[in-house]
Amino acid sequence: MESDTGRFETYSDGVFAIAATLLVLSFMVTTGPDAPPLGHQLLHLWPSYLAYATSFLTIGIIWMNHHFCVETMARADRTLLFLNVLLLIIVGFLPFPTRLVATYLQKSGEQTAVYAYDATFVLMAVIYNVWWRYASAGRRLIDERVPDSTVRAITRAFNPGVPMYGLTFLVAVWSPLASVALTFAIAAFYLPSAALFDR
Amino acid sequence: MESDTGRFETYSDGVFAIAATLLVLSFMVTTGPDAPPLGHQLLHLWPSYLAYATSFLTIGIIWMNHHFCVETMARADRTLLFLNVLLLIIVGFLPFPTRLVATYLQKSGEQTAVYAYDATFVLMAVIYNVWWRYASAGRRLIDERVPDSTVRAITRAFNPGVPMYGLTFLVAVWSPLASVALTFAIAAFYLPSAALFDR
Amino acid sequence: MESDTGRFETYSDGVFAIAATLLVLSFMVTTGPDAPPLGHQLLHLWPSYLAYATSFLTIGIIWMNHHFCVETMARADRTLLFLNVLLLIIVGFLPFPTRLVATYLQKSGEQTAVYAYDATFVLMAVIYNVWWRYASAGRRLIDERVPDSTVRAITRAFNPGVPMYGLTFLVAVWSPLASVALTFAIAAFYLPSAALFDR
Amino acid sequence: MESDTGRFETYSDGVFAIAATLLVLSFMVTTGPDAPPLGHQLLHLWPSYLAYATSFLTIGIIWMNHHFCVETMARADRTLLFLNVLLLIIVGFLPFPTRLVATYLQKSGEQTAVYAYDATFVLMAVIYNVWWRYASAGRRLIDERVPDSTVRAITRAFNPGVPMYGLTFLVAVWSPLASVALTFAIAAFYLPSAALFDR
Repeated sequence: MESDTGRFETYSDGVFAIAATLLVLSFMVTTGPDAPPLGHQLLHLWPSYLAYATSFLTIGIIWMNHHFCVETMARADRTLLFLNVLLLIIVGFLPFPTRLVATYLQKSGEQTAVYAYDATFVLMAVIYNVWWRYASAGRRLIDERVPDSTVRAITRAFNPGVPMYGLTFLVAVWSPLASVALTFAIAAFYLPSAALFDR
Repeated sequence: MESDTGRFETYSDGVFAIAATLLVLSFMVTTGPDAPPLGHQLLHLWPSYLAYATSFLTIGIIWMNHHFCVETMARADRTLLFLNVLLLIIVGFLPFPTRLVATYLQKSGEQTAVYAYDATFVLMAVIYNVWWRYASAGRRLIDERVPDSTVRAITRAFNPGVPMYGLTFLVAVWSPLASVALTFAIAAFYLPSAALFDR
Repeated sequence: MESDTGRFETYSDGVFAIAATLLVLSFMVTTGPDAPPLGHQLLHLWPSYLAYATSFLTIGIIWMNHHFCVETMARADRTLLFLNVLLLIIVGFLPFPTRLVATYLQKSGEQTAVYAYDATFVLMAVIYNVWWRYASAGRRLIDERVPDSTVRAITRAFNPGVPMYGLTFLVAVWSPLASVALTFAIAAFYLPSAALFDR
Repeated sequence: MESDTGRFETYSDGVFAIAATLLVLSFMVTTGPDAPPLGHQLLHLWPSYLAYATSFLTIGIIWMNHHFCVETMARADRTLLFLNVLLLIIVGFLPFPTRLVATYLQKSGEQTAVYAYDATFVLMAVIYNVWWRYASAGRRLIDERVPDSTVRAITRAFNPGVPMYGLTFLVAVWSPLASVALTFAIAAFYLPSAALFDR
């Protein structure tokens, strides 16, 4: 009932890369006689740039960490595969709330759009945590050659995920823009300094 | 005339991952002065969420089983490659009926949309069965190191596919929503408990 | 200046799989108060089904043959890489003329749409032929372990490509529908019986 | 804190291939009673063909060079991974300015569209240069078996990138069309003659 881990890595890598690249479809300009000048439109697209960069960076981080976690596993079982597909469902969904933020930020409906965006990240962080905790609890699926210190370091790196994204959700009550900026900051600072790689 | 199986696995994996990730394009909101509030729209998108999750889970299952089946094969021949491309044509088509269900469920035309959705799954199950039965009949393409019990277990796991999806089609006559819910249930329960992995 | 061939295979495989899966975006239905019933629309989408299946099958064939050809090569050089990118540019373009055929077949403008579709296939066949002839002429890039008979068999399989697709172009003068049907027939019959695999 | 380089190559390859294939979504025709004849529309799409070919060729070159550079590296570190994700963010963004050029060239707003297009290339060249210079400075991440001459040859090949794309930006002040044509010329001539491969 167990299988090697390379098995779901290729598929996961594909979904990560495609979801990230589909984010570009969030960028929209309007043409026609009544459309504002293109330069004006491109400047007013800044919520799209922010949402695009935030989602792309975040998928990049998840992809790097995913790869790193899978490398510590000796095998996968059915539950892990199930959790992995749940994670991919959320990652594959991300282009939709990203487009919502790109469309609604600084306009009527922005709060709802950012709630949807932040809720997606919270859900992603929860499932990702469950995924890792299932694999690592009692070293259930961990390769015996991987030292305990590595497993603990990864778990420590996962710990702040849910609270951090929960905080962005709370910040959206006060300011949707600040919430997206915080989500971006989490990604931008997390990427190079991921405790995950600090062994 | 025979070729190694890794040959069509990469291509199949690519189509599975891309088809799953393109499903996100089913999500649509409308903007403009007459559009309902975004929160209202997001709640009324639940047929989209259901259709997205159902199709994504199903592609995930097919992908896992596909990989597992191919691993039992020692080689591929022209007929198998042809059947494999037919299977990929249907998998690659799935985003369209998924978008139909997302658009029409609970609206006029929902029965037709769900018929199209269910018919796609029936066709997929039929071709997938033919694909496996061609490879496994008389162990035509099966590696000699794979025990008969494994081949029989996979065949048993394939058996309920066509009747189950045929049933969802019949249920759509009575209730389109119940039919999609059943398709989701098949995927959700099949994924973790796939008899396929129960050796 | 030479490089191993695995180098451009991954990239080519990716473009093939993505181009094939993007074909699904050709399917369009209209909603709104004046839209015809969905069942009616789905039946009238048959040009889309035909164009989708034809393009998907053709990309599948090119992918299989491409893989097979590359396996005979010991190395790639700059010219081959350039020709390969040209081939990928045409393959990546195919979803557009496919959408044209899906939209215009049986309507005003169908002849132009099918000319564009057929011209894309002719161009693809020409570049693909040049690609292979460059690699195989005087066994320029062929691995020394590959027998001459294999190289000749592949060349024979390439020979009918340009005339066949040229013929579909000519048929479009008389009947656009017959031309697309012929393009489909070429793909459907070529796939299982590719002389390429007949060694 | 170091990791093997295959790790981010798969992901990068995926983003390159998907971004290139998504370029086809730049092609748009209009239907309806007032639409010009399709043949007329297809001829007037030439800015789309030019933009598509230019962006596709450029991504192809970046992909080939990226692969080649990574092969010289013994390992990756966090900074390189961060720079790599920045590069991918720009590559994944390219389909948007490509669509802008396809839509606006030879129309009102063309200068702005080409500025956006050229600015994307300049940014891409800058980040790509920083990426390589970080890896190669003092042979920071270079494999010890790679001779100094190879590293110097790659650096020489990178040198003209930023000035060349800066020039296309300047040319756009005078003529947007000439600027895109120059960008195309850079790609077309750079691809087969890349000094990178001239060792």
